[in-house]
Amino acid sequence: MPKQPPVIALLTDFGARDHYVGVMKGVLLSICPDVRIIDICHEVAPQSIAEAAYLLWASYAYLPVGTIVLVVVDPGVGTQRDIVLARTKRNVFIAPDNGVLDYVLWQEKPLEVIALNYRSSLVEKMIQRKRSTTFHGRDVFAPLAAHIANGASLRQFGRKTPRGNVAEPFITKRDSGVEPKILHVDHFGNIITNIMQPQNGSPSFIRGIALGRKVIDRWIKTYAEAPLETPCLIVGSSGLIEIVVNKNSAASMLLSSHKLSLKLIA
Amino acid sequence: MPKQPPVIALLTDFGARDHYVGVMKGVLLSICPDVRIIDICHEVAPQSIAEAAYLLWASYAYLPVGTIVLVVVDPGVGTQRDIVLARTKRNVFIAPDNGVLDYVLWQEKPLEVIALNYRSSLVEKMIQRKRSTTFHGRDVFAPLAAHIANGASLRQFGRKTPRGNVAEPFITKRDSGVEPKILHVDHFGNIITNIMQPQNGSPSFIRGIALGRKVIDRWIKTYAEAPLETPCLIVGSSGLIEIVVNKNSAASMLLSSHKLSLKLIA
Amino acid sequence: MPKQPPVIALLTDFGARDHYVGVMKGVLLSICPDVRIIDICHEVAPQSIAEAAYLLWASYAYLPVGTIVLVVVDPGVGTQRDIVLARTKRNVFIAPDNGVLDYVLWQEKPLEVIALNYRSSLVEKMIQRKRSTTFHGRDVFAPLAAHIANGASLRQFGRKTPRGNVAEPFITKRDSGVEPKILHVDHFGNIITNIMQPQNGSPSFIRGIALGRKVIDRWIKTYAEAPLETPCLIVGSSGLIEIVVNKNSAASMLLSSHKLSLKLIA
Repeated sequence: MPKQPPVIALLTDFGARDHYVGVMKGVLLSICPDVRIIDICHEVAPQSIAEAAYLLWASYAYLPVGTIVLVVVDPGVGTQRDIVLARTKRNVFIAPDNGVLDYVLWQEKPLEVIALNYRSSLVEKMIQRKRSTTFHGRDVFAPLAAHIANGASLRQFGRKTPRGNVAEPFITKRDSGVEPKILHVDHFGNIITNIMQPQNGSPSFIRGIALGRKVIDRWIKTYAEAPLETPCLIVGSSGLIEIVVNKNSAASMLLSSHKLSLKLIA
Repeated sequence: MPKQPPVIALLTDFGARDHYVGVMKGVLLSICPDVRIIDICHEVAPQSIAEAAYLLWASYAYLPVGTIVLVVVDPGVGTQRDIVLARTKRNVFIAPDNGVLDYVLWQEKPLEVIALNYRSSLVEKMIQRKRSTTFHGRDVFAPLAAHIANGASLRQFGRKTPRGNVAEPFITKRDSGVEPKILHVDHFGNIITNIMQPQNGSPSFIRGIALGRKVIDRWIKTYAEAPLETPCLIVGSSGLIEIVVNKNSAASMLLSSHKLSLKLIA
Repeated sequence: MPKQPPVIALLTDFGARDHYVGVMKGVLLSICPDVRIIDICHEVAPQSIAEAAYLLWASYAYLPVGTIVLVVVDPGVGTQRDIVLARTKRNVFIAPDNGVLDYVLWQEKPLEVIALNYRSSLVEKMIQRKRSTTFHGRDVFAPLAAHIANGASLRQFGRKTPRGNVAEPFITKRDSGVEPKILHVDHFGNIITNIMQPQNGSPSFIRGIALGRKVIDRWIKTYAEAPLETPCLIVGSSGLIEIVVNKNSAASMLLSSHKLSLKLIA
């Protein structure tokens, strides 16, 4: 059987209006012509590290084993912020060291984490020497990912850096100490919280959720069983509790403000 | 000549804000690493079966012969709704059995239609055993398509199911009995109707169209020949009559409401 | 080493709501099954030739050597407008002859430019005989690109056509005679001008920019160093001066109207 081509997955806040994602793909294919590219998402809200961390966590386990995952949500682009390369059992993750990998590295213990050494001559050779200060996706991240796809070992790119444990991001029991919050509003207007229920059914530890003054405590298992116009709770496809409305956008109905407080109802 | 890699085409209402499409591609490439993926469209209006049926019909004939077409517009996700696998002369279509294949199966007589048997042990083995109730694109549809791309025969997945004839969806003559309607508004604001003219030129059977109280009866052959600010009729690229405005959006100019009635003018 | 598969890059104003881009890819893969496709961008403002010219110029040098670049921003679709095929040292560009290639052909002297001869029997054979008047992306451009990817020589498609020099599109010195203007507003709201500074640092020839009545003369090297709420100037990733606001959209803050005049401040 011939060797499978390498896979690189992309997660950015670059949107679709520009050439930014296309140029990154041009760089990837220039360096590694047989790479397969998967777009996880490019519509992360600009500079929203928390949203990117959620989308990455919800996706990575479904990518082919060995996929190199490149996350470019990078408010500090061009500054001295670190870039990290984290190897886990099934992936390599490349990202600015700003917290965007937190949920994944909480879920998957990394085997090693390397901080990129910009000054090493190898790195200088591999990335754009005359790099911009505003588009490291093109000048730093894409070349790194493509060279790793070509087989370069992570160790060449910098020093191992110790990682403390990442704080638990999800609420899995009462009095967990984790603040309830909204992680993401999806295309259908479903409101995705950080309250987790790995098994199907309503979590034993809460009866409902209060969003501002609105109490939501009707649990459903499929969208279709929800009465119309009625906000309900469902265990979403990643095990997190979502507030949803059948054939409508829960966000449009309920999120007059993103600042609305979220509370567990026991 | 080496065997061509299989092609899977995707049509969904998943949008671009989330990881949903990326995760489906991850599953496809995990199971069938050499598959080529074509995105037909992911911006079908949420749960709009009619719009998806139109977009699919307008696209499928231009996909490579043998393309497996996966349609996930699925308001009934997680319920007992059927999933069908339809084989035609040049394609396999996989979709929830909710009408989304109607236009294609009116155009192309299916050679066989299989209703997925969730309970067969083979299906259990191929799709996600612990499947979610909200994301069958990831847990059911993508694995099915990828296994078929790998060569699995449709018969393994369920029982043949008889199909009645699909009602003619287009108006091709006066007094056809088909209600005139708007199928889609495209990115340029062109309003695409279900009135068909396979040959170039104005249809012999109508003189114009009334949209609400507005009569449109100026026929053009290219956008550029239309006078500015003037709604015109053109035979679109799939043979359907479109209401268009040169360098402007006909929808913004005319569609104060999507409920506007459409009438043929003889 | 096996031959690398051909690469085709796409730049259109087709947007994401429709099947238009997907159908073009279907045609490309039908004719050239091993082609790799890169989407540069499909969100060019409808019929905006100038924006497409900018995005193309900012992208092409990062595509793999040999990439065939297909630009379909084509207000004259279906009319007698020319279609050109331009070969440069590293690319083939295919586009309607409406100025969309101007910036690239200013930057890269073309080795030859061919005007498509629709009437040649070879062209008739390769493109759709019964072509629409509204979707040449599908019926003309995609087949052309795919046949060229398969190895067809440009000369077969038409006659060599002489090209005058393209006027310098960028301002690189004081009194250059080029009018300052806004080329593009990107996803982050950065306002990209046609004032060029190839080297890092503030251009020696201007002190700042006036946008309407607002004077902007604070220069930064990274987004993060900009004070909040303060419009600043930065040399962008293609060497053009951009007006930016840290963690905010400069366009939302400043562009009350796209008609605002832009002036150099010496």
